[in-house]
Amino acid sequence: MLITPGKILAQINCPSDLKKLDQAQLVQLCDELRQFIIDNVSVYGGHFGASLGVVELTVALHYVFNTPTDQIVWDVGHQAYGHKILTGRRDNFHTNRVYKGISGFPKRKESEYDTFGVGHSSTSVSAALGMAVASKYLGLDEKQHIAVIGDGAMTAGMAFEGLNHAGVSDTNILIILNDNCMSIDPNVGALKDYLTDITTSQTYNRLKDDVWNLLGKLSHFGKNAQEIVSKVENGIKATLLSQSNLFESLNLRYFGPVDGHDVDHLVAVLNDLKNIKGPKILHCVTVKGRGYAPAEKGNATMWHSPGTFDKITGDIHKKVHESPQPPKYQDVFGHTMVELAKQNDKIIGITPAMPSGSSMNIMMKEMPDRAFDVGIAEQHAVTFSAGLATQGLIPFCNIYSSFMQRAYDQVVHDVCIQNLPVNFCLDRAGYAGADGPTHHGAYDIAYFRCLPNMIVSAPMNESELRNLMYTAQLPRHEKAFSIRYPRGQGVMPNWRTPLEEIKIGTGRKLKEGDELAILTLGHIGNYAVEVCEKLETQGISIAHYDMRFAKPLDEEMLQEVFTRFKKVITIEDGCILGGFGSAVLEFMADHYYSSEVRRLGIPDSIIEHGEQIQLHRESGFDPEGIKNAVMEMLEPITKVRS
Amino acid sequence: MLITPGKILAQINCPSDLKKLDQAQLVQLCDELRQFIIDNVSVYGGHFGASLGVVELTVALHYVFNTPTDQIVWDVGHQAYGHKILTGRRDNFHTNRVYKGISGFPKRKESEYDTFGVGHSSTSVSAALGMAVASKYLGLDEKQHIAVIGDGAMTAGMAFEGLNHAGVSDTNILIILNDNCMSIDPNVGALKDYLTDITTSQTYNRLKDDVWNLLGKLSHFGKNAQEIVSKVENGIKATLLSQSNLFESLNLRYFGPVDGHDVDHLVAVLNDLKNIKGPKILHCVTVKGRGYAPAEKGNATMWHSPGTFDKITGDIHKKVHESPQPPKYQDVFGHTMVELAKQNDKIIGITPAMPSGSSMNIMMKEMPDRAFDVGIAEQHAVTFSAGLATQGLIPFCNIYSSFMQRAYDQVVHDVCIQNLPVNFCLDRAGYAGADGPTHHGAYDIAYFRCLPNMIVSAPMNESELRNLMYTAQLPRHEKAFSIRYPRGQGVMPNWRTPLEEIKIGTGRKLKEGDELAILTLGHIGNYAVEVCEKLETQGISIAHYDMRFAKPLDEEMLQEVFTRFKKVITIEDGCILGGFGSAVLEFMADHYYSSEVRRLGIPDSIIEHGEQIQLHRESGFDPEGIKNAVMEMLEPITKVRS
Repeated sequence: MLITPGKILAQINCPSDLKKLDQAQLVQLCDELRQFIIDNVSVYGGHFGASLGVVELTVALHYVFNTPTDQIVWDVGHQAYGHKILTGRRDNFHTNRVYKGISGFPKRKESEYDTFGVGHSSTSVSAALGMAVASKYLGLDEKQHIAVIGDGAMTAGMAFEGLNHAGVSDTNILIILNDNCMSIDPNVGALKDYLTDITTSQTYNRLKDDVWNLLGKLSHFGKNAQEIVSKVENGIKATLLSQSNLFESLNLRYFGPVDGHDVDHLVAVLNDLKNIKGPKILHCVTVKGRGYAPAEKGNATMWHSPGTFDKITGDIHKKVHESPQPPKYQDVFGHTMVELAKQNDKIIGITPAMPSGSSMNIMMKEMPDRAFDVGIAEQHAVTFSAGLATQGLIPFCNIYSSFMQRAYDQVVHDVCIQNLPVNFCLDRAGYAGADGPTHHGAYDIAYFRCLPNMIVSAPMNESELRNLMYTAQLPRHEKAFSIRYPRGQGVMPNWRTPLEEIKIGTGRKLKEGDELAILTLGHIGNYAVEVCEKLETQGISIAHYDMRFAKPLDEEMLQEVFTRFKKVITIEDGCILGGFGSAVLEFMADHYYSSEVRRLGIPDSIIEHGEQIQLHRESGFDPEGIKNAVMEMLEPITKVRS
Repeated sequence: MLITPGKILAQINCPSDLKKLDQAQLVQLCDELRQFIIDNVSVYGGHFGASLGVVELTVALHYVFNTPTDQIVWDVGHQAYGHKILTGRRDNFHTNRVYKGISGFPKRKESEYDTFGVGHSSTSVSAALGMAVASKYLGLDEKQHIAVIGDGAMTAGMAFEGLNHAGVSDTNILIILNDNCMSIDPNVGALKDYLTDITTSQTYNRLKDDVWNLLGKLSHFGKNAQEIVSKVENGIKATLLSQSNLFESLNLRYFGPVDGHDVDHLVAVLNDLKNIKGPKILHCVTVKGRGYAPAEKGNATMWHSPGTFDKITGDIHKKVHESPQPPKYQDVFGHTMVELAKQNDKIIGITPAMPSGSSMNIMMKEMPDRAFDVGIAEQHAVTFSAGLATQGLIPFCNIYSSFMQRAYDQVVHDVCIQNLPVNFCLDRAGYAGADGPTHHGAYDIAYFRCLPNMIVSAPMNESELRNLMYTAQLPRHEKAFSIRYPRGQGVMPNWRTPLEEIKIGTGRKLKEGDELAILTLGHIGNYAVEVCEKLETQGISIAHYDMRFAKPLDEEMLQEVFTRFKKVITIEDGCILGGFGSAVLEFMADHYYSSEVRRLGIPDSIIEHGEQIQLHRESGFDPEGIKNAVMEMLEPITKVRS
């Protein structure tokens, strides 16, 4: 389906076209850009609310600044659709997030206008400051560097680190705080309250001005002093006690708040700011989903990335299935948390800003005093969990695999070195799909397996996930326990199986075989089941072991495997360097086995976005790839050199 | 040498003894405690300035609060000597930082008073908040939770994440900001300026009080209005423009600043704060090295951890050597940076708060516009470096191996996924020595090797370090380059060798041999040289390859090794799970080799503190351990099962 852009938008192939417009045309361009996004996302899916919220800001930035010489860094980047459409990607925007199509996030390889690849939050201040410091060093004094960052992303410590450096940097950096009170879920924390304080009632700046004006007049006229002073006093109280400016504390000149949907005013303000040297922050108030009523008024979390929908009615399309479908792993996690927490009052849930993405929101709703959204703050989430564990509580900290990278030191330093029993549930482990490389959970097996006092596990189905979670909350006084599972559905429509303990470090033999053994870890094992069944019908007998644990390994099972099989394939939805397969190689070396082993998994390269199955195929561990690997190994040549 | 405690200190075996003292005795106790620390550290070495700075705070905290029920978390922990001495470790304090002795940092295993193990900075707010939330959930409403955190540690994003959550937590958490304007090196960044603003000239709180008082009086009397208003105006200006309170922005009740060396006042303030519910912060101004004139007045960085010294004269003992000694690796880094930067104007140096520890201070002094200390902000340091790289500059980001864990996601997300040519120099790789497990650089080979677009290297000596650095700054448009080297000295007194390019992914054959090959990575290879030479004299011929790169591996060299040798030993000063040795195993599996391989390295357990050689011995890869491994493998039994 071809999406037709509006009349003005159709002429904008790059920002220099935009600059030719009369400023009076910008409002219409904003309307057309907004409509183009609605038309596209309703048909092709993608992130939605965030881009609608910054339409005016996007147009104003490209109108005022000289991109790509001036550099805009979009934090997180799921709000950058307008930016992409205005910078040469309008006509292939329908390939957004599709395999081999354009990325859902800014990406350096894709366009010179995408100055910095993003996906995870809160990197923009540091990146833009690096650019600004480089420009200063290179003598490019007029070059501008702009970071557009949401109030949610501002809660991450990394943003604060960047602000702390920016405040003393003496560079041309403009930080635009896009304040919409939302991450994917509503924001939390003291900073949110603070920003709300600034933007509600009288604005901070107006108040400040009032105070100055009043005092100025007072000192000139000295009349009705008491009354005026009383007014001043109220002003000062409000200012001092609740509206001291955090950003000015950090030596950033603070401007705003301004209405982020008034494109004319934005153009004026940005033109002014362009001429003010030094680090500064513009506080811009926007509405997520702006201009599309169902998104603006409805559930903002739902409209963050709604899938396809009927743009007239606002009805989100839902697949209708004739038979019961397996649940998403995340929902199995969410419901099982509540089930376990009802039985065990020591269980606490923690998520850094992913209540809906992890389904921790189920527990947050049912047990609000026992489940915490700590904001975009992975480092804090982990050490906070460690603190809970020191008091005998049992934390389940749910973090996406790729976001877990954000708190690696906290896992090492606060959990593993102290040998505290913290449970980590890593959602989105393996290929994340359309979100692409920034969100793929590729490395967690490798980066966790090398840590002492860490258990590394992955369930092959819903029942296994429930049992691993059940096991993780049984009394134990040491060791961290990580449970990784993929984005998306499991395989068991009837998933609410009885909870059973799993002996830590034991696998399951799923199928006997003669010619070769396949060892799998996690959900990806279901592909192996399929392959083994198919090959069996062709008279090829393959054994299949679901190892369940990458650490500790089931050594007894591995002794059996390597005693019986000269050819072994390992499969994991994780990096093959240092991952589960490498753990198996280490076992072999330590026990003097010499079977031929082929490891399937995520290769040592950056794999782009696409549907999970497409990425598995590209990486050679979809069912076809697994079958091919088996057949190659079964060729009657022994390759191991003796 | 026996250190005798003063009369009062001699009676304090635990905080309950302290509580029996009359408050009037506390000043003397502080004197005695300070003297005991001076007496000990001057003879036995250790951290110094930080503990002297918090003597009064330590005494006041244990006097007022009911430890260990009330919980004190010391951030970083090198200021906790007084705490250790007052909590049962006075008489074995001389074993501080010694192998098998007490730890230089608080450690849960060591004492119930050590509520949370520390070493890296900025974890205390999150940990204490976890404890406080647990206490609230468990109904322990009277329990107090105190985080003592320095102003340096406060610049790390993680602390901000903790504050942002604490501000809305409604728990009994008291954050004590120990403000001495120092990390190990002087603090940097906007927050430092801000805190200085508060504490110099008139204090923030006095100013605030003055404003209230004046306005109060004014509204009552209305006399001399203009003059008074003018005074008020100045007060307000100062307050509004430069002294708005950052902490109150985050909804933390702010108290202070108070003199952190007035123990009586501290006792009074802490007693008051104990009765104020909710999250609060006490700003305490202290002097690092307080009470020992040479430290107080001299170079605070030098007195952070001075080694042993003459306590009367303040002369720091320096070993006198008869022959020229090899330099520290960090100094080779520091001087080579300057040498390279003089030749290549694109080179920029970045360190997160380790200018003296990394010797980046050499470049900061010579080229202040090209070398940046960004504060305790590892995440920012890496993404800032990535930003510099996008502009064609060549960043060398120097971070200790264990601190690199702090910025793992930034390496993945901002450097490797974008394939940017950022150089990482990882100091303190391998066992860090007396600082213990929090500072051991055990995991970097494993956690970097699994990342695409990452080169992983380690020099065996000074000349190799220089050549790797030289190679890393040669024009290349992709790939991150990591160079890891240990704490301490190299092996070449004449280290300033000519700079030469090393072909990436190539090793060096150091010695031919017949019976077995040793493959080493990095400085630890010098042990192997020693072993091979010794064995040669006994007629045992061992080949030795310095592989230099864990990634990419020198595949040609490995083909030679595995074609010629049936027995191979790998050695690395890094974790054996997933490390260099595992990379060798992966190569073998991929190329169908089946030699017997023994991997030596850091085992899968937490290794405590001690001298590096002691820890190498414990882990079986000191020269003796290597020799034993060789001899075991050479027993005439082939263990590989075929």
